[in-house]
Amino acid sequence: MSHITQKRVVVIGAGFGGLWVAKVLAKTNYEVIVIDKNNYHTFLPLLYQVSAAEISPEQIASPVRSIVRKNKNIQFMHGQVSEINYALKYVMCLGQKIAFDYLVVSAGSVNHYFNIPGTAEFAFPLKTLDDAMVLRNHILTCFERASFINDHTQRQRLLTIVIVGGGPTGVEFAGALAELIAGPLKKDFPELKNENIHVYLVEASDRLIGMFPKKLGEYTCKQLKKKDVKVLLNAAVNKIDATGVYLKDGTVLHTETVIWTAGVKGELIKNDLKVQIMPNGRVVVDEYCRVPGYDDVFVIGDLAYCVHDGKPLPMIAPVAMQQGRYVGKHLLQILKGKTPRPFRYIDKGGMVAIGRNKAIAQIAGLHLKGYIAWMIWIFIHILYLIGFKNKIFVMINWVWSYIFFEKSVRLILPRCCNDPRADGCLRRGRNCKV
Amino acid sequence: MSHITQKRVVVIGAGFGGLWVAKVLAKTNYEVIVIDKNNYHTFLPLLYQVSAAEISPEQIASPVRSIVRKNKNIQFMHGQVSEINYALKYVMCLGQKIAFDYLVVSAGSVNHYFNIPGTAEFAFPLKTLDDAMVLRNHILTCFERASFINDHTQRQRLLTIVIVGGGPTGVEFAGALAELIAGPLKKDFPELKNENIHVYLVEASDRLIGMFPKKLGEYTCKQLKKKDVKVLLNAAVNKIDATGVYLKDGTVLHTETVIWTAGVKGELIKNDLKVQIMPNGRVVVDEYCRVPGYDDVFVIGDLAYCVHDGKPLPMIAPVAMQQGRYVGKHLLQILKGKTPRPFRYIDKGGMVAIGRNKAIAQIAGLHLKGYIAWMIWIFIHILYLIGFKNKIFVMINWVWSYIFFEKSVRLILPRCCNDPRADGCLRRGRNCKV
Repeated sequence: MSHITQKRVVVIGAGFGGLWVAKVLAKTNYEVIVIDKNNYHTFLPLLYQVSAAEISPEQIASPVRSIVRKNKNIQFMHGQVSEINYALKYVMCLGQKIAFDYLVVSAGSVNHYFNIPGTAEFAFPLKTLDDAMVLRNHILTCFERASFINDHTQRQRLLTIVIVGGGPTGVEFAGALAELIAGPLKKDFPELKNENIHVYLVEASDRLIGMFPKKLGEYTCKQLKKKDVKVLLNAAVNKIDATGVYLKDGTVLHTETVIWTAGVKGELIKNDLKVQIMPNGRVVVDEYCRVPGYDDVFVIGDLAYCVHDGKPLPMIAPVAMQQGRYVGKHLLQILKGKTPRPFRYIDKGGMVAIGRNKAIAQIAGLHLKGYIAWMIWIFIHILYLIGFKNKIFVMINWVWSYIFFEKSVRLILPRCCNDPRADGCLRRGRNCKV
Repeated sequence: MSHITQKRVVVIGAGFGGLWVAKVLAKTNYEVIVIDKNNYHTFLPLLYQVSAAEISPEQIASPVRSIVRKNKNIQFMHGQVSEINYALKYVMCLGQKIAFDYLVVSAGSVNHYFNIPGTAEFAFPLKTLDDAMVLRNHILTCFERASFINDHTQRQRLLTIVIVGGGPTGVEFAGALAELIAGPLKKDFPELKNENIHVYLVEASDRLIGMFPKKLGEYTCKQLKKKDVKVLLNAAVNKIDATGVYLKDGTVLHTETVIWTAGVKGELIKNDLKVQIMPNGRVVVDEYCRVPGYDDVFVIGDLAYCVHDGKPLPMIAPVAMQQGRYVGKHLLQILKGKTPRPFRYIDKGGMVAIGRNKAIAQIAGLHLKGYIAWMIWIFIHILYLIGFKNKIFVMINWVWSYIFFEKSVRLILPRCCNDPRADGCLRRGRNCKV
């Protein structure tokens, strides 16, 4: 015990935001408690590759304890925070009150279904590692079922996959899925060689990856079409049910597999804070990433509505990382008795992989596409992936699939999942028993 | 179509037995249908390493289709066979009748609990890849919970693990678990450094690995004790319940984690065959691996009770592989119009890994122990593991954990499993919803 009482920082969420706060505060005079509902950090930018059977879930997950354990001032708690009590300065987790002096909420985002009927019940989300595994299992099971089914209509439904949302996730997954089908699955299922296998990418606006320049969106669209992805623009979804997707223009896509990548929103934990919440659930923060009116409560990442140069910052990993690093430094300034400066976001650009040798990127004002963008994409993703062994494993997988046109994690595993949409479970339905 | 009608061989199970049948019949004039409830072959000898967070489940699983797809005469069907109808020569799978000319049943074994009360409900099995993941999740969650629980008794229960059965699986898992705890978990959970963490290995007979010479069993026992495993011999289990394990001598081991490795049995699918079933569920076969009285029904692997040189063959992988290869050749002899010779088993010995640098082996009459046995163990397991990339990944993992004393797959993933024993699920209980 030092003479000065050690202040405690509680960080909710071990994603890009929370982890970077902890990294900056490592080996300082703060006591840090990081809380997450998973015991691992997920490298979300590669999540779609897990669903596409390209890499293993383990390869984009790193145990939080192994990341923070070198630092004695950081503790990890595995659990879900159920409440923030600011009046008494604690959060509730696992039935315990965890006191804080400073609170950083970096709890990320959840799917936003815009109240479209059936979406929450029948579309597969792609937000967590569990989601990715469920989706992989389901797609592979659809092919297994299609190979032994006599009814033509039903077979067509099983061999049709609809991705809703033409943003980066939808585009990247569509590209990876098209390659999974064209290569390994066509080889695995010779009995389906004369069948039509459809991958649809459905986007409500008139272009793909709207946050990028129009030319890059057009290039992306062309490349996906070359891969046999059916891109539907200006196609708003009216309804989803067990039989398929119903578009506003009357089109019906009959399918067993709808993947939702069309929107996310913030969702703040139950609390007694006076906060302003935007329609998409994000919490308004000031230029110090604080909830206005509170000097000791920070919200960062997807959950934070942070206006910067007149525009709200997007819900992407680089924003969360920079805000995390900023909040860490902000707290260190306080420790030193200095006045922290406001948060400045540096836009380093963005990139989207379309598939083999193809990507688009916008970096330092440059618009790149094709092979060079793809190489940069690979370099950046390996660079930021946490864990040296994960980097090696992912690289081996990529080289392997590049050379052999293979995606080797084609496993329906685990077999039992009690999500009724998960066909990976042979005993389907919510009441499935192990 | 050739002039001679192609005969169809249906193989139930893509384990070591069934897969080897298919391999021998590849590119021959038989039509082969391999049926399995999983879409992958599991390399069971390394299953315990998945539970011990050393390797990923994906690394010991190979998609059956990728193994057989080069051979046009082999088809794979992903489903569970519900019935064998010999009179009409078909098996039922996924609601379809799959006709056969020859049937090979290599469906493996299930846990045998000897009617010990509570075993089926409260003990964790370690027979499938799903089991291994559930167990890994549970053990890691016990440590997470222990780190934030105030009640001392409850913490002790969470930090006590009881393995029932001193055969090869029990010994290998006990050794791997002891190393997981002594290395990574003690580093991950500094807050538990003053706690007693107990691993018990409970065996009903007076020695470990009874099928090996006594000296090797004693060596194994000594090595496990060095690793802080509490080996209890002559310790029969009376009862297991939610609070712990009750031994016949009155000892009670308070724990949340009991792993059952003390016995397996055969379980034949519903059928109309006239078969003789042994008390442990195995199906009696003749010296041609056929069900006596049937020329066209073979049973191999764990499920077969095959007497050889006056003794029944053990339920181990080499027996299944040799029988599989034999049945394949037997069928080829029939195709050539020759008379097949009876099955001869060649005992190539056995081996058990105890941990870092330590194993025992019995090969060609030699009794080996320590480093040399361990090197042979590694070599043999990598040799038989299916898939070149799996070999590389497992090797990297082993080298990594050897150098850094790490077990890096310490992930509670997937998080939701509806097995009430699976603490990996934050919302515990059979009615847990995704």
